[in-house]
Amino acid sequence: MIVEVISIGDELLIGQTVNTNASWMGTALREIGADMEFGTVIRDEEKVMHDAFSHALNRADVVLVTGGLGPTKDDITKHVLCDFFDTKLVENGDVLSHVKGFFEARGREMLEVNILQAHVPEKATILHNEFGTAPGMWFDQNGKVLVSMPGVPYEMKYLMTEHVIPMLQERFDLDKLYYRTIQTQGIGESYIAERIELIENEVRAAGYALAYLPSPGSVRLRISSRDTKANREAIEAFMKRIEGLMPKHAFGYEQDTLEGVVGALLRERGETVTTIESCTGGAVAARITSISGASDYFNGSFVTYSNEMKTKLVGVDPAILDDENIGAVSQQTVEQMAQGGRERLNATYGVALSGIAGPSGGTETKPVGTVWIAIAGPNGVFSKKCLFESNRERNIRRSVLTALNLLRCEILELNGEKSF
Amino acid sequence: MIVEVISIGDELLIGQTVNTNASWMGTALREIGADMEFGTVIRDEEKVMHDAFSHALNRADVVLVTGGLGPTKDDITKHVLCDFFDTKLVENGDVLSHVKGFFEARGREMLEVNILQAHVPEKATILHNEFGTAPGMWFDQNGKVLVSMPGVPYEMKYLMTEHVIPMLQERFDLDKLYYRTIQTQGIGESYIAERIELIENEVRAAGYALAYLPSPGSVRLRISSRDTKANREAIEAFMKRIEGLMPKHAFGYEQDTLEGVVGALLRERGETVTTIESCTGGAVAARITSISGASDYFNGSFVTYSNEMKTKLVGVDPAILDDENIGAVSQQTVEQMAQGGRERLNATYGVALSGIAGPSGGTETKPVGTVWIAIAGPNGVFSKKCLFESNRERNIRRSVLTALNLLRCEILELNGEKSF
Repeated sequence: MIVEVISIGDELLIGQTVNTNASWMGTALREIGADMEFGTVIRDEEKVMHDAFSHALNRADVVLVTGGLGPTKDDITKHVLCDFFDTKLVENGDVLSHVKGFFEARGREMLEVNILQAHVPEKATILHNEFGTAPGMWFDQNGKVLVSMPGVPYEMKYLMTEHVIPMLQERFDLDKLYYRTIQTQGIGESYIAERIELIENEVRAAGYALAYLPSPGSVRLRISSRDTKANREAIEAFMKRIEGLMPKHAFGYEQDTLEGVVGALLRERGETVTTIESCTGGAVAARITSISGASDYFNGSFVTYSNEMKTKLVGVDPAILDDENIGAVSQQTVEQMAQGGRERLNATYGVALSGIAGPSGGTETKPVGTVWIAIAGPNGVFSKKCLFESNRERNIRRSVLTALNLLRCEILELNGEKSF
Repeated sequence: MIVEVISIGDELLIGQTVNTNASWMGTALREIGADMEFGTVIRDEEKVMHDAFSHALNRADVVLVTGGLGPTKDDITKHVLCDFFDTKLVENGDVLSHVKGFFEARGREMLEVNILQAHVPEKATILHNEFGTAPGMWFDQNGKVLVSMPGVPYEMKYLMTEHVIPMLQERFDLDKLYYRTIQTQGIGESYIAERIELIENEVRAAGYALAYLPSPGSVRLRISSRDTKANREAIEAFMKRIEGLMPKHAFGYEQDTLEGVVGALLRERGETVTTIESCTGGAVAARITSISGASDYFNGSFVTYSNEMKTKLVGVDPAILDDENIGAVSQQTVEQMAQGGRERLNATYGVALSGIAGPSGGTETKPVGTVWIAIAGPNGVFSKKCLFESNRERNIRRSVLTALNLLRCEILELNGEKSF
């Protein structure tokens, strides 16, 4: 089964928006063993769209179209589809009541353009869009399938996951692929490769694929094969061996996040955490509370950005902050922050960070990217100095992930005396 | 002049790499008034490439190809190009000595495959690649141009900037394009369309393009035209009129961010801000401190997630929190949070948020997505109740953006008594 993805939108062509939808769809298709073989980006002009649909249906079995569906007048996709499949727009009662409900629930007035969103091509199977007002439309004609979806990423993802993927699996009787992922933090791609070299050779010799998927601060390792019971068991065994080689770094599987893993550990132990953040400015707390139900283990926290607030809010000794050989970015300061915050909020763990996020503010002894992290807990304080990079956004991201992983290791008593 | 960009590579189709090259090229082309009208992603298979080149040269004047050039074995682009343009590979002395020098300078051994990189199609104009070993190749045949470049982003950017862009400008005698963007917050696409309908008609009647680019909590409006002095002035006047119709929502231009705009306002006034966050869990503070130099106007802040912490850290009256008709998600609570935090940290403004981020925790009177926001400042407290949606991540994102925009409006004295 050959799939072409057509992304409609000027914003993609002039570079104002990066086409992350197509990447996401490529991954999602891969997981059901379907190959995206062509990706096409076009503007929302009638003739261009018509030609692209026609060319795509010539070379592919399935054409997935995103974009060009929405309430403003530059949306012409529906009319092109009617013309292309020789059908007409009819009002759909289900879509109309969904659109009405959508606006009522938000206490907002429904406009004429929104009512028009309930007009859909008669020949299409309508796919309910829980998160938006433009439905998906599935056309099945002459043995080929074309699906049109809105370009808003979360609406497209909902439609793909809930409707398109299962419908494609059934329609084309696809072989299922089996995937397992190990999530790691704090170890680079090439260091993982070195550490698991022997296992990696065995994985490949068994005919399985192993992919490294790096992002700043974390690397995912994915093993894949055809979905059989024997393959599942063999892959499970390889995963256990890989994890065993890096317990401090392998923190979870599949879509696990560090904040989710840490949250689950705290909840099952009846423990709580607070954060005392300088360079990350609240980003660790925001990560922890991005999980629904975080109130079970998180009551509150501090951002202590200035030296004055480090003293006023969590009691860091001003003499340390003023000492030019110690200062705010130091082991003493983060340890006092972690302990002070933990005591004041009566939390099981206090996580403190202080560093130089950049791009300016570095010195010879403390270059940009220097970040001290401390975890205060029942077993005392563990602290670690990190040296990240010069980019502010990536420094903050890596600081957040490292702090959460050090907290995980502290809860599991993996930190010990050895350097992390 | 119509341009098609063809990106070659499996990694783009299976979603392992996002196609940022195509976005970058779209922007670069726009700046010289050339429109990328088609973007195509294909795998590096001979027949697929041949078909894609042929199809592209039919519908476009210029075809820019990236990827499929490099020292590894999957590199078949050059052979396809020779076949396609009916020419043969010849050794190029300049390229060979560049490749030799490239390896010498790095103290690395040159392999047989690297020598082959100096073999180039006889009919192509060779474009020197300062940063890599695979040169660019420019074919000009039957009035159309096809350029092949490596897919490594910095090599492609070098070739585009130094060679392809200036060569295209000369070859096609191009006009420059001009475009301006207005950033808005807190108003949906269809509401903007309704509010600016008359101006939008005038914009389109003047022959300019107007595009809506929505994302959760914000919409960008972009007007574009050919780059002439008269068009610049006319677009500037349209922008002022559009802004005048929505002063509370239009917060900036081009790549402006709310945290950047708010930060600049605070700095120029010598004022400071603190945040007291419940449902956003530190995300507003993290946004504010994502800007380098935020320490000029931000000293610290609180996350008061539990009721206990709302009282302990910023002095919210426990009787209000315990009253089942008022509670934590209420006007009274956020106003006390904002004032309490502002006083304790001696900040000019206190920004407080309390709401139900979801997906669970909603009640009949306070459904998921209900968020109260208060801004305490020199003119007293302004507060607003928002009703967002059921998705936790988007609720938090919209809460953060709305709070920052309300702070902006409070600084600029736009909030007044009317509801926002």
